Amino acid sequence: MKEEIIKIVEENAFAKALHIELLELEKGFAKGRMKVEADIINPYGSVHGGALYSLADIISGCAALTYDKNAYTVSGNMNYLRPAMDAEYVYCEVEKLRQGKQLAVYDVKLTNDTGKVLETGTFTFFIGTSTIKEK
Amino acid sequence: MKEEIIKIVEENAFAKALHIELLELEKGFAKGRMKVEADIINPYGSVHGGALYSLADIISGCAALTYDKNAYTVSGNMNYLRPAMDAEYVYCEVEKLRQGKQLAVYDVKLTNDTGKVLETGTFTFFIGTSTIKEK
Amino acid sequence: MKEEIIKIVEENAFAKALHIELLELEKGFAKGRMKVEADIINPYGSVHGGALYSLADIISGCAALTYDKNAYTVSGNMNYLRPAMDAEYVYCEVEKLRQGKQLAVYDVKLTNDTGKVLETGTFTFFIGTSTIKEK
Amino acid sequence: MKEEIIKIVEENAFAKALHIELLELEKGFAKGRMKVEADIINPYGSVHGGALYSLADIISGCAALTYDKNAYTVSGNMNYLRPAMDAEYVYCEVEKLRQGKQLAVYDVKLTNDTGKVLETGTFTFFIGTSTIKEK
Repeated sequence: MKEEIIKIVEENAFAKALHIELLELEKGFAKGRMKVEADIINPYGSVHGGALYSLADIISGCAALTYDKNAYTVSGNMNYLRPAMDAEYVYCEVEKLRQGKQLAVYDVKLTNDTGKVLETGTFTFFIGTSTIKEK
Repeated sequence: MKEEIIKIVEENAFAKALHIELLELEKGFAKGRMKVEADIINPYGSVHGGALYSLADIISGCAALTYDKNAYTVSGNMNYLRPAMDAEYVYCEVEKLRQGKQLAVYDVKLTNDTGKVLETGTFTFFIGTSTIKEK
Repeated sequence: MKEEIIKIVEENAFAKALHIELLELEKGFAKGRMKVEADIINPYGSVHGGALYSLADIISGCAALTYDKNAYTVSGNMNYLRPAMDAEYVYCEVEKLRQGKQLAVYDVKLTNDTGKVLETGTFTFFIGTSTIKEK
Repeated sequence: MKEEIIKIVEENAFAKALHIELLELEKGFAKGRMKVEADIINPYGSVHGGALYSLADIISGCAALTYDKNAYTVSGNMNYLRPAMDAEYVYCEVEKLRQGKQLAVYDVKLTNDTGKVLETGTFTFFIGTSTIKEK
């Protein structure tokens, strides 16, 4: 199952375009990062809010998938605390709040290279009946 | 001012990579769209939630900029009602809820080619003291 | 079914304490109001944010119940646009975004006596398998 | 300042009606609780979502006030993970994510008597220029 999820991130064109990689994966837990390159920068010179949200959505989605069933984002929300400036990577770590039969809720923290919290968010997933292999 | 905002979207690498274009722009109002191509698709075959959020963030940000001052996203939240499947474009229209001196709040509706609502969201912006020209 | 929902609001001690009443109810739609009295005022002299949220939660919950199955709030979020000052009533109207078999999403608008929008919000409900009569 | 905030909660009619009390208060931190009585119960027999949100709003608001300036809720969102059943008290603890000159963001965790997390939320405050004494 773990290999399956790693492959999903590695092969997804959107995750690749955003330079997102999965670093750690355990049941109900995931950690990842996004390399800060010129193509994810906003007009103010910091990492684009949409790229940061995408990182959070993808990594929390990986955590929600570790219970073998498909997970579809129902809602996501992000709080931008500090602009992601002069970072080589933005890191993303998720915390499982609840993984139920039909709904899963994950908290997300994005940090810079020195561990400073840049953004927080919460993502809610609907848990499907099929597995990620069946899609 | 309008030309300035149009240029910002046209020249931003992130918006370009997501095939996002601004279609209409008035004080407190903006409309845009995102071309659905293979590189913004999620592993389930519909448009990636992060791409949809990015479209909403960018277009509502354009509307918030029409009052001449810089606008920084404070928080954003998205509700995924229906997967964006088999669409050529996803359209985004924003509604001004409030544009104050320091905070602006915009509602966002994403629709498919036939006008069906796919996602809704709300974005809150902090209004700066500098103008978009000064950055 | 309609009578059942009206009775639920009328008999609930929390809704009563907040002076909340249901005014209209149709499939996927509800309208209600809250009488502004001294016991729902915050320390700044306007209606308490918690009372405004409660109004939104209760009235959107009534709309979600009109499809015969129990509805449990999964998440709620509120944007406070303008303080509710000098109002006799705060009105609440909901708009159905989606009513699915397992999830329902409603948008909420709170207005004052003159129709000015004070707050907006979105509420997501999990739809149960039992009916409101069975509880 | 601390005494001033404690007095605000003790004297506010809405907080009193909901049996809310402030237990601890430090710069950027607050803890409180709400006594579960019949008048804050929803039709399903657990604590009403609006009462839980109000507890979170009030206690995080107290934390935001500890920097001497008035704090007004801009937005609040709550995730209901588990129903608050058979609890004598619901406890609320907040974590400062950011306290800036104009915006403050706090994370909230609600727990039952045994420490189990029932709800999480995030509240954003606009920081005023006047102090709580001046109102």
